[in-house]
Amino acid sequence: MFGRPGMDRRGFTRRVLLGGAAVATSWSMAPETSATAVAATPARTAPAGGKVRHLTLYAEALPGGQMGYGLEKGTASVPGPLIELNEGDTLHVAFENTMDVPVSLHVHGLDYEVSSDGTTLSRSDVPPGGTRTYTWRTHVPGRRADGTWRSGSAGYWHYHDHVVGTEHGTGGIRNGLFGAVIVRRAGDVLPDATHTVVFNDMLINNRPAHSGPDFEATVGDRVEFAVITHGEYYHTFHLHGHRWADNRTGTLTGPDDPSRVVDNKITGPADSFGFQVIAGEGVGAGAWMYHCHVQSHSDMGMVGLFLVKKTDGTIPGHDPHDHGAHGTRGGATAEAAPEEPEEPKEPEEAAGERAGHHHH
Amino acid sequence: MFGRPGMDRRGFTRRVLLGGAAVATSWSMAPETSATAVAATPARTAPAGGKVRHLTLYAEALPGGQMGYGLEKGTASVPGPLIELNEGDTLHVAFENTMDVPVSLHVHGLDYEVSSDGTTLSRSDVPPGGTRTYTWRTHVPGRRADGTWRSGSAGYWHYHDHVVGTEHGTGGIRNGLFGAVIVRRAGDVLPDATHTVVFNDMLINNRPAHSGPDFEATVGDRVEFAVITHGEYYHTFHLHGHRWADNRTGTLTGPDDPSRVVDNKITGPADSFGFQVIAGEGVGAGAWMYHCHVQSHSDMGMVGLFLVKKTDGTIPGHDPHDHGAHGTRGGATAEAAPEEPEEPKEPEEAAGERAGHHHH
Amino acid sequence: MFGRPGMDRRGFTRRVLLGGAAVATSWSMAPETSATAVAATPARTAPAGGKVRHLTLYAEALPGGQMGYGLEKGTASVPGPLIELNEGDTLHVAFENTMDVPVSLHVHGLDYEVSSDGTTLSRSDVPPGGTRTYTWRTHVPGRRADGTWRSGSAGYWHYHDHVVGTEHGTGGIRNGLFGAVIVRRAGDVLPDATHTVVFNDMLINNRPAHSGPDFEATVGDRVEFAVITHGEYYHTFHLHGHRWADNRTGTLTGPDDPSRVVDNKITGPADSFGFQVIAGEGVGAGAWMYHCHVQSHSDMGMVGLFLVKKTDGTIPGHDPHDHGAHGTRGGATAEAAPEEPEEPKEPEEAAGERAGHHHH
Repeated sequence: MFGRPGMDRRGFTRRVLLGGAAVATSWSMAPETSATAVAATPARTAPAGGKVRHLTLYAEALPGGQMGYGLEKGTASVPGPLIELNEGDTLHVAFENTMDVPVSLHVHGLDYEVSSDGTTLSRSDVPPGGTRTYTWRTHVPGRRADGTWRSGSAGYWHYHDHVVGTEHGTGGIRNGLFGAVIVRRAGDVLPDATHTVVFNDMLINNRPAHSGPDFEATVGDRVEFAVITHGEYYHTFHLHGHRWADNRTGTLTGPDDPSRVVDNKITGPADSFGFQVIAGEGVGAGAWMYHCHVQSHSDMGMVGLFLVKKTDGTIPGHDPHDHGAHGTRGGATAEAAPEEPEEPKEPEEAAGERAGHHHH
Repeated sequence: MFGRPGMDRRGFTRRVLLGGAAVATSWSMAPETSATAVAATPARTAPAGGKVRHLTLYAEALPGGQMGYGLEKGTASVPGPLIELNEGDTLHVAFENTMDVPVSLHVHGLDYEVSSDGTTLSRSDVPPGGTRTYTWRTHVPGRRADGTWRSGSAGYWHYHDHVVGTEHGTGGIRNGLFGAVIVRRAGDVLPDATHTVVFNDMLINNRPAHSGPDFEATVGDRVEFAVITHGEYYHTFHLHGHRWADNRTGTLTGPDDPSRVVDNKITGPADSFGFQVIAGEGVGAGAWMYHCHVQSHSDMGMVGLFLVKKTDGTIPGHDPHDHGAHGTRGGATAEAAPEEPEEPKEPEEAAGERAGHHHH
Repeated sequence: MFGRPGMDRRGFTRRVLLGGAAVATSWSMAPETSATAVAATPARTAPAGGKVRHLTLYAEALPGGQMGYGLEKGTASVPGPLIELNEGDTLHVAFENTMDVPVSLHVHGLDYEVSSDGTTLSRSDVPPGGTRTYTWRTHVPGRRADGTWRSGSAGYWHYHDHVVGTEHGTGGIRNGLFGAVIVRRAGDVLPDATHTVVFNDMLINNRPAHSGPDFEATVGDRVEFAVITHGEYYHTFHLHGHRWADNRTGTLTGPDDPSRVVDNKITGPADSFGFQVIAGEGVGAGAWMYHCHVQSHSDMGMVGLFLVKKTDGTIPGHDPHDHGAHGTRGGATAEAAPEEPEEPKEPEEAAGERAGHHHH
C-alpha cells in the first residue's frame, strides 16, 4: 500500500509515499506536471487519512562509521527514508537492529504510547539483533468535549535514534540515524518532489563539506523541502531566489494569513519545518544556492545547489562542474539580460522615472 | 485580592493567582478536573480584567550563592512566584531588597513608566535594605483613533533583575532572580496547573544537572508550561509525546489558524513562550521527558520528566527511582501494548495492508 | 521619483523612500504627524505598486577598514541606504564598485534572475572599478492558475555583499556592506520614521561597543524598526517598554490574528524582521534601552537607546550624557508615585506640541 522508494542516484533522499498518491520525483516527472500544465491543472491534494499502515525499518552500520535507517537490508541511507502519512493514519514500524549496539526510533510530533518512545528511560530501545514494533498514530484536528480546539498531527516532523552514544542518541544522530516524517492534512497540496535537508553539526545530510547535496528541478515544478537540524549548533537556513511562509505548511492560507514570509530561518537541534516552492517562479532557471547563513558555516561548506533547469534541460550561466570554490574570473560587467521574464508586467514607467539603465 | 501561593513541596513553582479563579495545582486537584469530567465540562476561562492589585515581593539571598524572589520573607524560590494577571489589570509590586547588593525588578511585555524599568539607567533599582513600588499595567486590545490595531498585553512574559553583577543583571539572573508573568485575555482557557521552566545557562530552574525538575499530572489534566530562557546560550525546548501551537496561547484558535504546531522550539536569552497540553492526550500515561535538544546540553543533564499518571496513580513502565543515568538493561522486545487507546479509530485495515504485527 | 536620503547626522540611517509617499523622518516631521494629530487622522498607508524605478548605488571603502553602500559617491554609510518599495515595483540598481576588490549586491526576499544573484557562482559580482545593473522585482499576492495561493513580496528584507573575503561575503558583511529593504503592501501603515538596526557579530551597525546607536522620537510617533542580524552569532533583540507582533508587519491584523506578541526575539545571521511601535504608548516618555539579551553581548555593549521625548522635548529621568556605564548612585528608595495614571492616553496635549522640525 505504499510505493517503493524512488531510486535516487545520489542516495540522499528515498521516498516512501504512504498517502496513496502517485510517486513523483523530479527525475520521473510526468509531462503534465511541467510548468505550463501546472498552471492549468488544479494542484493535487492529500486525501483523508484513517488507514492502518505497516513499514519495516532497519538500522544498519554504513561505511566510515556512519549509521542509517533503511526500508530493506542493505539500503540504509542518510537521511533515512522519508515517511509520509495523512492525518488519521496509524503506522506500525517493524524495526530491526542489525548493528552491534542498542539503537532506537524516536519520533517527533506524532502520537505514540510511552512504549514507543524509543528511549532507555521507557525501555523502548532495541538491543543488537533485536526487533520491536513502534506504533505511531496521527489524528485530525477537532473540538474537544470541553469546547477547546485540538490541533491535528499535520506537520513536518522527523524521527531519530535516542540511545546510541548517550541516552539522548548523540552518537546515533551524529552518525546519521535520522529522517523526515511528513503528516499531511486532507487538502494539503502535494509536491512533485520532496527533498530532506538535515543540518547536522557542520554537515548537510552528513556529506563532506562543499559537496552538496544538490537538488534538480525544472522550472514550474512544485518542490518541497523538509528541513531538519540536529547536533550541537544553531543554523540559519537560506535559499536563494525562493521564499516561504513561516507557518505550518510553508504556504500562506490566503490573503488573511498574517504569517511572515521568509527566505532565511534560524533553527536549532531537533527543530523541523518544511515548505514548497514553485521552482524558478518569478526568477527563472538557475543554479540557486541554499546554505547555512552563519558565515563560518557557509564558508566551511554548508552549501548545496537547487538546480532549476529550463524545460530544455539547460541552466543559464551554470557549468555543471562549477561547484564549490570558484577561481578568479574575468569581471562580469554585462547587464542582466531580461531572459525568461516571468514577471514581465513592467507597466508604464512612472512619469519622471529615469528612462534609461545606468552603466558606468 | 489574590490567592496565597500554593505550597509546592519541591520549591520550584509557587503560584500567585491574581485573576480571581480558584487556585489549582496538580497536587491539589479538585475531582471535577479529572480526565473524564474535563471532557464533559466546558473549560474554565479567564475573566475580564481591570482590577488594581497589590503584591509584596522580596529579593533574598539563598544558600549556595543563589538569589530569589519571594512573596514573604524567607520564602524566596528559584524561579520566583508565578504572577498571573488579566488584561486590564494594574499591579503594584511593593518590593523590598533584603540583600546586601542593589537589585531590581524588570518586567517584559507589560506597560510601565520608565520609573518602573528596573535599571540603573532609569535609577529604578533598589539599594540594600531599600524598598520601591514598581507599577505594571496591562491593557486589552483595541483599535486606535487612527484606525490601526493595538495588541493587548496577553502573553507568557517574565520578570528578572537587571542590576546585580552587571548593568544587565547578569549576576542576578545567573543566581536565580527571575520568574514568570502570565497575562490572560478574557476567554483564555485556564489550566489545572502551571509549571515554570527556566533554561538558565546549562541548568533548569537552577537545579543541579540530571535532577529535574519533574512535574506530575494525571491523564486528562490541562497542564500549562511557561518556558523562559536566560543567560548566555541558545536552547531548543523539547517535550516528548505532547506538542503545542507556536502562537500566543500555544493553542490553535481553530481550523483557520495557520500557526505551526511544534514539539521543539529554539529560544534564546529572555525569550519566553507558553502552552497548555492535555496530559497524556492520545498517548496515555508515562514518564515523558522534556529536555533541551542541543545534544551536549541534554547529555549534561538539561532534562526533566513530565510524569503523567493513570487515574490510579501509576505510571506504566516507570520506576520512581529511575531518573537520570540508566545502566544497561536486558533488551526490551515486547510490542507496545495498546493500553489506553485514546485514538482507537483504527478503522478498516486498508485492503492489502499486512494484517499482522511484525516481530522478528 | 525617490527622495534624497534624509541627512542623518549620526550616519546610520539614510532613507530612500521609493514608494511615492512623502519622505518623513523623526528629524523632518510634518506637523500633521505629531502625536495628537495621529490620533485623530487615519494612519497613512502605502499605495499600490507597479512602478519601474531606478537607483544608483556605490560600494565604497570607508575609514578604518569599513566598507559601505551609498547613493552618491562619498556618502556610503553603515548600514547602507534604506530602500523601500511597494509590491509590484521593479527596481533597477545601477551599481558601481569603487573599491579595489570585487564586490556584489545580493538581496533577500525579492525576485531576481540568477544574473542578479550577486554571487561568484552566478558570475554576477562586480570587479574593481566595474559596474553592473541588478534588477529586483516584487509582486503582489494572488492565486495561481492551479488554485494555490502565492504570497506577495512584502516584508522586511535586506541586501548585502556576497563576495568580499569569501564566496559568502564574510569580509564584506563584517565590514559593513549591508542595508535594509522594505517592501510594502498596498494598505500597509506607513511610519513616521524608520531605523535600521543590524546586529553584526558583537556590534550594532558596526559602531564601537557601548555607543549606541540611539534613536530619538516624540511620544506618539509611529516608529519603525528594521532589524537585521549578520555574522557569526545568534542574538536576542529586546526593546524596553514596547512590543510587537511576531508576524509579517509586526502589527496584529486584528482580534483574530493568533500571532505571539513579543518584546524579545531570537535571530541568527541573515534573519530580518520589522515592526512599528507608537513611541511611549502606554508607558510615556523615557530613555528606553534596546539591547541584545544574550547576557555577555549586552555587557559587552550591544546596547542602544530609544529616546522617547515628551512633547516639550524632555525625557524624564534622563541625563543626555548618561549612556553606558553608570556609577553607583544614591539609593533610590522612594516609592514609585502613581504619576501619569493608568493609561495616560496623552490626551489633548495639542497645545504645546512642537510645530516645527527638530534639528539639534
